[in-house]
Amino acid sequence: MKLQTGSLARLVEELARLPGIGPKSAQRLAFYLLNAPLEVAEKLAGAILEARKSIRYCSVCANLTDAETCAVCADPRRNQEVLCVVEEPKDVLAMERVRGFKGLYHVLHGVLSPRDNLGPAQLTIKQLMARLKGGQIKEVILATNPNMEGDATALYLAELIRPLGIKVTRLAHGLPVGASIEYADEITLTRAWEGRQEVK
Amino acid sequence: MKLQTGSLARLVEELARLPGIGPKSAQRLAFYLLNAPLEVAEKLAGAILEARKSIRYCSVCANLTDAETCAVCADPRRNQEVLCVVEEPKDVLAMERVRGFKGLYHVLHGVLSPRDNLGPAQLTIKQLMARLKGGQIKEVILATNPNMEGDATALYLAELIRPLGIKVTRLAHGLPVGASIEYADEITLTRAWEGRQEVK
Repeated sequence: MKLQTGSLARLVEELARLPGIGPKSAQRLAFYLLNAPLEVAEKLAGAILEARKSIRYCSVCANLTDAETCAVCADPRRNQEVLCVVEEPKDVLAMERVRGFKGLYHVLHGVLSPRDNLGPAQLTIKQLMARLKGGQIKEVILATNPNMEGDATALYLAELIRPLGIKVTRLAHGLPVGASIEYADEITLTRAWEGRQEVK
Repeated sequence: MKLQTGSLARLVEELARLPGIGPKSAQRLAFYLLNAPLEVAEKLAGAILEARKSIRYCSVCANLTDAETCAVCADPRRNQEVLCVVEEPKDVLAMERVRGFKGLYHVLHGVLSPRDNLGPAQLTIKQLMARLKGGQIKEVILATNPNMEGDATALYLAELIRPLGIKVTRLAHGLPVGASIEYADEITLTRAWEGRQEVK
């Protein structure tokens, strides 16, 4: 016998589509949304629709924004000579949490992945190259993820960018801080070994 | 510098209000809702609003339903003589997962809790007593949670119901199946001891 029918079942179903939300969590969330003040449910639904309506890609760096250009691109205090290339908007947030970086970003919206039919045309590489040809940028930091596809994308971009006479760098690979060598995987350890630095 | 402004920040904020969703998960969900096909976001928002509009309490047992009476109360095959009293609608779902029980339910929508200003009038106790006075029910199983407030509520209800000549029972306390005695807490172990049964 199906206990949850109609609109409750539908709500649970839609919630369970969200990443990381299993059927049990979906049920818990559904009950919460039904028991909370009506305003809570309406605000959430409204925020979803409003975000979908107003959020678009920054015309410069392709990050998410609800203005013509994002907050970073619109800020004249950012260093206009250093550009950090990331895969996704969430990577920009991760980078900003570090605080040290004061340059600009470019969001690729993916990585090269023949398996998923993602070639250069599916990413924002054309826009990136147009930006670089503007001549203001002196260094590009390729901050794609340290995995096969991220590395391949970085390599591909490096070959495209180097002829422009721009310095191309990649985030260091190595042991995460606080990790123990005993449990580090082989590849990480090899990278840490290759990237070893002189202690002065 | 605040990177997330306007509608994205608002969406993250609303998602982070959900129980069990921290700021990081909220961000992940927000990005998902922005990147997913528009339909996914619209369906979720629609399901939330629709559920809030159509779901109400069953006029008999106070469980959630979008009809006048819930699926259990509307089913003539359910045993009309046994009534299981639970705290919340989600408890009905937990009970139904067990499968063995074929009787009816009554949802209290809370427990007695002087601390939270929840007295008998805030629960569906009046409706419960009216149902019981109908005379059809022979046994009431008090399935409130095995904690102080659940136990107090069960005790309170038992005293109300017993004068009607209806059998009142409580779910057994004891060791959870698969648990080890070594790690059982004292109170559980005491209850398991008190409730010991003869092996025949």
